[in-house]
Amino acid sequence: MATLHHSPFCPNSRFIRLVLAEMGMEPSLVEERAWERRDAFLLINPAGTTPVLVEQTGLAVPGAGIIAEYLDETRGLGLSGRRLLPEATPDRVEVRRLLDWFLVKFHAEVTGYLVLEKISKRFMTSADGGGPPDMNAIRAARINVRYHLQYIGYLMERRRWIAGDHLTYADLAAAAHLSCVDYLGDVPWDESEIARDWYARLKSRPSFRALLADRVPGMAPADHYADLDF
Amino acid sequence: MATLHHSPFCPNSRFIRLVLAEMGMEPSLVEERAWERRDAFLLINPAGTTPVLVEQTGLAVPGAGIIAEYLDETRGLGLSGRRLLPEATPDRVEVRRLLDWFLVKFHAEVTGYLVLEKISKRFMTSADGGGPPDMNAIRAARINVRYHLQYIGYLMERRRWIAGDHLTYADLAAAAHLSCVDYLGDVPWDESEIARDWYARLKSRPSFRALLADRVPGMAPADHYADLDF
Repeated sequence: MATLHHSPFCPNSRFIRLVLAEMGMEPSLVEERAWERRDAFLLINPAGTTPVLVEQTGLAVPGAGIIAEYLDETRGLGLSGRRLLPEATPDRVEVRRLLDWFLVKFHAEVTGYLVLEKISKRFMTSADGGGPPDMNAIRAARINVRYHLQYIGYLMERRRWIAGDHLTYADLAAAAHLSCVDYLGDVPWDESEIARDWYARLKSRPSFRALLADRVPGMAPADHYADLDF
Repeated sequence: MATLHHSPFCPNSRFIRLVLAEMGMEPSLVEERAWERRDAFLLINPAGTTPVLVEQTGLAVPGAGIIAEYLDETRGLGLSGRRLLPEATPDRVEVRRLLDWFLVKFHAEVTGYLVLEKISKRFMTSADGGGPPDMNAIRAARINVRYHLQYIGYLMERRRWIAGDHLTYADLAAAAHLSCVDYLGDVPWDESEIARDWYARLKSRPSFRALLADRVPGMAPADHYADLDF
């Protein structure tokens, strides 16, 4: 059995949890607090970031984008029609473009700020950078999330799923990131009804269940967070 | 013939120029000033970042990591022994780990700061964010580059090339980023002789020539920049 080193509200870890569930894999989960820079964790990923997938053979695969490529190469063909990185070249480019959009760009502009300021800082010591949230960072993230939601709406007016006709890594990455923001009540769903409908479809998938059950200790989710018909 | 939308001192554009030269491809080059957000450029890459490779068919491939995957899938097999993303699974994981290290992490901690503060700001209007360099950002980058150089030294004490026995994308990405920092005279080469020797080997390759000939208008490179025996 594989092991996933993750953090429950790290959006890139959530993406890989969704991917593994869609592939029918049930890894054992090890929770990491990346800011503690645990020695044994740095040995398997010198960058010190989550997620990291460790195979039973000992092979460590660090980073959400790299795990996605790895899983496609080692398990993708077994999924036939349900492959999450499609086969045709232009489709692969589009899925990877949007995967990078959410794992890197959305993370830098939205989720990174919100998860650090509102969640991680509650558990960090002051030496680690803990303390009260930086309201400027939170405000910036709340402004940025609006145009991302409009962009999802724009794509979904033209397509069945974010990157084309089929569910792909791009949908799972976008939904994983939005799920963290939604827990915090910071998704302006009124911005795009079509984006909201797309997210409701994702959220109803069995792969989403475990994510919706996670809780930040001492911090309840937004009311509609786990409601499948919000 | 393919077209590469790039910026001469965008380190991720430099990486793709090296890759194309190693593959024997000579694209036509279009220079982009990403901060101008040119409409026709946003149409081919909504993220507005360089590099973007546009094939003669019209297919636009945006982002250095995505272009690298795309070129490996469409041209990689033709390179046989010189393939820049190796075939064995653990080697692919290692190359992608280090590729991401330089394209994303080194960029966020070193090159992004230095290129923006010392180069781009000279050409940006004040509305675009131009103006005098932020010395705190430059100082942070100069501190950060030291541990990256030590890390390259650490890897090169154990390997012939950064990711293993062969030249790969990881070497080209690391060298592309260092070449921008070296132009500015900000690589502390005394930190690791072995890293310096590895870079001298890269810099002597024919694929590097065009990069070493580029100049920032009104700003000379560090003395040793284009010296192959520095």
